[in-house]
Amino acid sequence: MSELKNYHMSAEDFRRYGKEMIDWIADYYERIEQYPVLSRVKPGEIKAALAAAAPVAGEDFGEIIKGLEDTIMPGVTHWQSPRFHAYFPANASGPAILGDLLSAGLGIQGMLWSTSPACTELETQVLDWLIDPLGLPEKFRSTNRGGGVLQDSASSAVLCALLAARERDSGLQTNKTGGNGRQVAYCSTQTHSSLEKAMGIAGLGRDNLRQIEVDENFALDVGKLRERIDLDKAAGLRPVFVCATLGTTSSNAMDPVAAIGKICAEENLWFHIDGAMSGTAAICPEYHYLHDGVEYADSYCFNPHKWMFTNFDCSCFWVADRSALINALSILPEYLLNEATESGAVFDYRDWQVPLGRRFRALKLWFVLRYYGVEGLQYHIRRHIELTKLLIDRIEADENFDLVAPAPLNLICFRHRGNDDLNKKIMDELNESGEIFLTHTKLNDRFVIRFCVGQSRTEEEHIKQAWRLITATAARLRGEVTLDE
Amino acid sequence: MSELKNYHMSAEDFRRYGKEMIDWIADYYERIEQYPVLSRVKPGEIKAALAAAAPVAGEDFGEIIKGLEDTIMPGVTHWQSPRFHAYFPANASGPAILGDLLSAGLGIQGMLWSTSPACTELETQVLDWLIDPLGLPEKFRSTNRGGGVLQDSASSAVLCALLAARERDSGLQTNKTGGNGRQVAYCSTQTHSSLEKAMGIAGLGRDNLRQIEVDENFALDVGKLRERIDLDKAAGLRPVFVCATLGTTSSNAMDPVAAIGKICAEENLWFHIDGAMSGTAAICPEYHYLHDGVEYADSYCFNPHKWMFTNFDCSCFWVADRSALINALSILPEYLLNEATESGAVFDYRDWQVPLGRRFRALKLWFVLRYYGVEGLQYHIRRHIELTKLLIDRIEADENFDLVAPAPLNLICFRHRGNDDLNKKIMDELNESGEIFLTHTKLNDRFVIRFCVGQSRTEEEHIKQAWRLITATAARLRGEVTLDE
Repeated sequence: MSELKNYHMSAEDFRRYGKEMIDWIADYYERIEQYPVLSRVKPGEIKAALAAAAPVAGEDFGEIIKGLEDTIMPGVTHWQSPRFHAYFPANASGPAILGDLLSAGLGIQGMLWSTSPACTELETQVLDWLIDPLGLPEKFRSTNRGGGVLQDSASSAVLCALLAARERDSGLQTNKTGGNGRQVAYCSTQTHSSLEKAMGIAGLGRDNLRQIEVDENFALDVGKLRERIDLDKAAGLRPVFVCATLGTTSSNAMDPVAAIGKICAEENLWFHIDGAMSGTAAICPEYHYLHDGVEYADSYCFNPHKWMFTNFDCSCFWVADRSALINALSILPEYLLNEATESGAVFDYRDWQVPLGRRFRALKLWFVLRYYGVEGLQYHIRRHIELTKLLIDRIEADENFDLVAPAPLNLICFRHRGNDDLNKKIMDELNESGEIFLTHTKLNDRFVIRFCVGQSRTEEEHIKQAWRLITATAARLRGEVTLDE
Repeated sequence: MSELKNYHMSAEDFRRYGKEMIDWIADYYERIEQYPVLSRVKPGEIKAALAAAAPVAGEDFGEIIKGLEDTIMPGVTHWQSPRFHAYFPANASGPAILGDLLSAGLGIQGMLWSTSPACTELETQVLDWLIDPLGLPEKFRSTNRGGGVLQDSASSAVLCALLAARERDSGLQTNKTGGNGRQVAYCSTQTHSSLEKAMGIAGLGRDNLRQIEVDENFALDVGKLRERIDLDKAAGLRPVFVCATLGTTSSNAMDPVAAIGKICAEENLWFHIDGAMSGTAAICPEYHYLHDGVEYADSYCFNPHKWMFTNFDCSCFWVADRSALINALSILPEYLLNEATESGAVFDYRDWQVPLGRRFRALKLWFVLRYYGVEGLQYHIRRHIELTKLLIDRIEADENFDLVAPAPLNLICFRHRGNDDLNKKIMDELNESGEIFLTHTKLNDRFVIRFCVGQSRTEEEHIKQAWRLITATAARLRGEVTLDE
């Protein structure tokens, strides 16, 4: 940002275009409901409309901003729309956006404590902050033997947990000499696919993941877990890791954490808990119960980038024994040696994650916690759960629709009576309308529509309108499609 | 950003505080040289000064911004200072910062093509764009069998390459049943530690990484590589992967890419090339030669977040055969099924990386390429290399100092005559002065000072001043310390 004519953006231009970009974003939020929620472009359309080659001469930044509406926006699926109810939310907020902006502006790289102590220590402190409001165990605190770290996603967190488990079990032997194909891990049939992916990545083998059956509420069946562990031990295999989920992706099922934790304690298995979306709810005292049994966990993860108004990516990951994690992931070459590291008085977070480099991600989480305060976050979580109840009441009162799983928080799984084709058709037409975006799953082999409430700006009117749209679409399609199962 | 009193930041406040943050960042760059480059805080100092607990009530955002100078800035090591010469640069620019801002503002999550087609297709196109200017092979192009993807770092890229190699060799068997401890990989003693870390993560075992000896210029010795492969084969092991480096971390050594590539072709080994920092130089025709032999590569990586004015994180990773990568990393649960994915007409980038979720990282790279144009980037790369030569000339002309490795681009490895202690003392005093930040490495077991030029705003005067500081510090310490080896 020198003033010289040297291709860099001048300070003056940065101020000017930066403010234009801020206004562009504010305008975007004001017009966000005018876009179809799910992008309507066809494969290849966006790419084809872009220049065929990188420009040789630079372009004016004002023109670049002006062009965004035509080049990029048709290809955006609007995760920040109050009518986005697909997957899980990735809700954002003003303070979080400005935290990411500050992180980009400072441009620091926090791989080591010494490469910006604030990046490490703010992160450590903010993760300590969250322990009390969420009702997490004291052992996760950095001042005890544990500690928290930000990962890019729950996928990376579960991979790190699995690696720590693998190494704790093998006495660091797997790190040295490679996998032996005999370490096994456990989850339920409803656990997020990232664990199966992590089993492959970690060289443990996807076939060595036991996907335990679930009960009628889609929660892990502890008896079956117990049986399977015994079977594997009898077969000479080494059980090393169990993952429980608080709020499964498909249906928001809650695994029986305490019962699983007791088995892990008896068997000395690494116990990881994935509370990716639903963990946020525990910030309200009335949902603290979600974390009952977390005291058994070796590691725990939830994503402020899902339901806590903190832009993706921001995944909180705690461990009870940080040395187990660091032992699994640490490498110390000469060019990264420094006094602070050698003293042992600091955390070097590159030893708590897969990549070496890291951004100053804690800023956005810090801004969110300070701007909203714990009570502001509680207010919105409670509102989202109330809004969900509003829709549940309507579904339950309508003879054409059925809830197909418990909906303890902000995710509803429902079906129209009739076959899968009709339900898929209802969902597809709703999504094509551009008015709303929903996704599906399968439960007991049947197609189920998922409706998740968690977007920052979703209000009562959006829910009522969604229900009108769902019932009208269903009524129209009932005339066209057979209802036979 | 509703106007309601509901704890969210209002649109009006977002505009106001967003512009304040833009000004704060612009001001920061104007005062950046007033800070000590390397943070002076002691371990625990930043954390201790933060609130002990998360606030219950929200705070005013204006106050949060005002507090940054006192709470955060003392703990920042200034990677964007023109006097930062440590490690590798992580240079930033106005267009890149605004790209990150836009990404945060849109708040989309690009795990699948359908979750924002623009996020996927812009990324594909921008990586196609770079192939010609960098002189990379056509096979990397998405319209052929290859394709490019953004990773968070070269560490993650090499892990993905290693996983693809592991699975290509095992016929996807390792993914299913786990590692067997018999697959081996090759690099040099100078290869970045991320490969050794990746060997552990991937369950291949760090001991199965052969760190081949280097020649007098610290480049991999191809004869030794050949010997070691033969030895391993004779021992019944399976060579699967070779990593060559264009610009090693310690000394910027260039491995003999074409010669290594020929061996890989003969032996059917996955050939990965890590051009993390130095790959950027190939954007100048006179440095195209750096990519001679890249046509042998199965995968290639360089980091615009090092030397191409694009904020961390932004690591470009290309593969020649995308199906090999996707086969290694793909998992498709029901809740992620969608028509575009099933049609096979699109890329779902979550299958090209470790995590599931992904940010809209391509925006910042697109902004940089368009704002600077290829010629703007060439201008700065050439300038940095000229500035490096300026310092090389001074070192060579001074009898007290020696260059200890070839300096083909923007990294200088040098020593003061005398022992390691003196050199370490010189470096430590320079860093403590706050005027400059350098790091070290060891070459041939001797302590070596590294000086890297690549910060966006480094000018001739900074280099001259650095040299004055280095010589003055050395002169002072010569009086205190023995020069005996």
